Amino acid sequence: MDKVEVAVKGPAGLRTFSGIVMPRHGASGEDILILKLKSGYNVGISVTRIEEARLLEKAAGRPRALAEVAHRPGLPLVHILSTGGTIASYVDYNTGAVHPALDAAQLAAQVPEVLDICSVKAVILMGKLSEDMLPADWAVIARAVKAAFDEGASGVIVPHGTDTMGYTAAALSFMLRGLPGPVVLVGSQRSSDRPSSDASSNLVAAARTAVCKGLFGVYVVMHAGTSDGCVLIHRGVRVRKMHASRRDAFQSINEAPVGKVQDAMVVLYKTADKPGGPLEVKDGLDPSAILVQAQPGLTSEFLLSLKGQYRGVVLSGSGLGHAGTHLHPALKELISSGVLVFMTSQCLSGRVNMNVYSTGRQLQDIGVLPLGDCLPETALVKLMWALGQTKDPVKVKELMLTDIAGETSGASASDVYAVPPLPGGD
Amino acid sequence: MDKVEVAVKGPAGLRTFSGIVMPRHGASGEDILILKLKSGYNVGISVTRIEEARLLEKAAGRPRALAEVAHRPGLPLVHILSTGGTIASYVDYNTGAVHPALDAAQLAAQVPEVLDICSVKAVILMGKLSEDMLPADWAVIARAVKAAFDEGASGVIVPHGTDTMGYTAAALSFMLRGLPGPVVLVGSQRSSDRPSSDASSNLVAAARTAVCKGLFGVYVVMHAGTSDGCVLIHRGVRVRKMHASRRDAFQSINEAPVGKVQDAMVVLYKTADKPGGPLEVKDGLDPSAILVQAQPGLTSEFLLSLKGQYRGVVLSGSGLGHAGTHLHPALKELISSGVLVFMTSQCLSGRVNMNVYSTGRQLQDIGVLPLGDCLPETALVKLMWALGQTKDPVKVKELMLTDIAGETSGASASDVYAVPPLPGGD
Repeated sequence: MDKVEVAVKGPAGLRTFSGIVMPRHGASGEDILILKLKSGYNVGISVTRIEEARLLEKAAGRPRALAEVAHRPGLPLVHILSTGGTIASYVDYNTGAVHPALDAAQLAAQVPEVLDICSVKAVILMGKLSEDMLPADWAVIARAVKAAFDEGASGVIVPHGTDTMGYTAAALSFMLRGLPGPVVLVGSQRSSDRPSSDASSNLVAAARTAVCKGLFGVYVVMHAGTSDGCVLIHRGVRVRKMHASRRDAFQSINEAPVGKVQDAMVVLYKTADKPGGPLEVKDGLDPSAILVQAQPGLTSEFLLSLKGQYRGVVLSGSGLGHAGTHLHPALKELISSGVLVFMTSQCLSGRVNMNVYSTGRQLQDIGVLPLGDCLPETALVKLMWALGQTKDPVKVKELMLTDIAGETSGASASDVYAVPPLPGGD
Repeated sequence: MDKVEVAVKGPAGLRTFSGIVMPRHGASGEDILILKLKSGYNVGISVTRIEEARLLEKAAGRPRALAEVAHRPGLPLVHILSTGGTIASYVDYNTGAVHPALDAAQLAAQVPEVLDICSVKAVILMGKLSEDMLPADWAVIARAVKAAFDEGASGVIVPHGTDTMGYTAAALSFMLRGLPGPVVLVGSQRSSDRPSSDASSNLVAAARTAVCKGLFGVYVVMHAGTSDGCVLIHRGVRVRKMHASRRDAFQSINEAPVGKVQDAMVVLYKTADKPGGPLEVKDGLDPSAILVQAQPGLTSEFLLSLKGQYRGVVLSGSGLGHAGTHLHPALKELISSGVLVFMTSQCLSGRVNMNVYSTGRQLQDIGVLPLGDCLPETALVKLMWALGQTKDPVKVKELMLTDIAGETSGASASDVYAVPPLPGGD
């Protein structure tokens, strides 16, 4: 990667930028030069506005070759288990091929700050866009996390595509019991070859989280909205991607984030989790579960068509956890046939309460089980996991109604509901 | 309803409350007296803390009998078309029976402020919990709205259960073309026989909205979060219930609310909509459409099982509008068989962009059509409506890709994304 200095015409005369020339791709346009600045930020510069350009340093073909393991004396060891996604890869926008790029060498070339925080062992587990992540992949990641801790890692970073990062974080939360340190999923909403990429800042924050004492769970570390330098630490079972493109797309739902990384410091909002017992991987999983949203027009025929296909159904019901009364007979038949049915709320925030209206009580009489303030997506993943732990439906229900990894609580936090700003501010 | 005065023990001595005794039900507990105060607010008082009670006025069995139409000289006529739900009814918590209670008489007894704003004709259309609302009910409401305007109404209020109010609002938005005035859906998150019910304040705000000049669409009017006296006016195609129980559950997604009602005034944030042409009801509807969330574990078999059942599918894809690559052949087969497939984002905020990643472009090549920043639920309702307008799939696609009622725009507002507050405030 060449390092250059360019002088650019602007309203206030010439302005100079120096940085590394990032690879060009179709989506950014032929006439845009993208420079990665020393700050880690990328800028896009229209080539028509460039007055002068000077080559500072010629790229050496490939980034300088570091070992797969970058030892930094005195710094804790963090394993980086790359799975693909925008943060860990260059996407070839012509072919759609994903190049998993994050070995220690490229990491050092791209985000050298990480090596000031920890020693790194970089492992490429898979190279997938996260929409292609399958339930079977969760077990692969869980076993690799165990291997990392068994090899002495203080923490593990899992770069992951953002689309399904919440689902994977939930799965790892249930599969990994007794964690001796944090497992940190991290992604970026804009790839590192784009202007204003969040890849570097998120990865640095992930490294700080991975070496933080007092964290023994699975977390998602992504940009916060409130200030540019703030990155949030979300509990894996409580996080949801709430915006298609913004850097602050990830939100904790129904609880405050676990903490934040700001000014090179980790601030925990909560008392530390309990350290785990012996690390166990409970990676049994049965993917024969589906998340279905209650909606006007949903038919009994549709619900009954799930009978042969699935062992479990998570409904995202309306409001406090409702589905049309006309669907109750079909739900009863589904449950009688052995399918387990659970209720969450499509509102996402707040909790299911099926005791307020008689229709909710009727659903419970039929055998629909309410899941409190658990996110629908987390409930789906938990159901696949519970179905994989035991063949006994009574035990599956018990697992579903037990808080395993902080996915549900007796009383939801009331001050964490996101309300959009109003025009004019009041 | 008896009017009483009670003296209650408190930390600062006795405090006196006077108000109307509201009906007691199981959920509020045997030992709680609920009084509706003159302010419209309800309070719940533990009977063990009552020192003295005095009967001020004995209830006359039923509320005083007003006519179905309450004429108020000089005030515009508003039709109230009650459909059921918490706001319009007393729910018998033992049997679950819903009593549609909102005729003009009861309205005058319960929310007399409305009759200072408009003349009222109250019509009971149906009495349903909103989770039981079927697509066929939307057409009944749409035709009743037309009849109301044909009879000279300036605006129409539709009290509705909150669970599916967003779906109904979207449906009415597509069905009612050329509206001469506002159609205002309103609900309450807590029934009027409960402490801190929002029924009265929402209904008063709905009345102010219904007589407001410059509004020619379908709106949802519900409590705002920021201050107790503020009620928001949401565009019917842009609103979503985002919390299971809070009074400020309803949010405009991807655009600012249309306006607010505060201090007895309607403030519009936007330039007024265009007045409609001649009022037409396009109530043709084909409910053979379903909303399916992309999720890890979704199978080709499931997608193919939709083939015989549905003419159209709305996917709520991950991120920018993705579904697993392994599902592409099944989606192709589904589309080849004549099923129309559209893409929205399960993130809810932001917009689908299927040109960023090659997998998105592949989905478009297969024939999956992106719907911009349209809400998944609105897209589902719109698809049912479009399928009911024409048998020609090309014309259905055209309708889906055309903005009919403000449900999608070329560029989403960037400053309306709801971000939860952080502990400590920064």
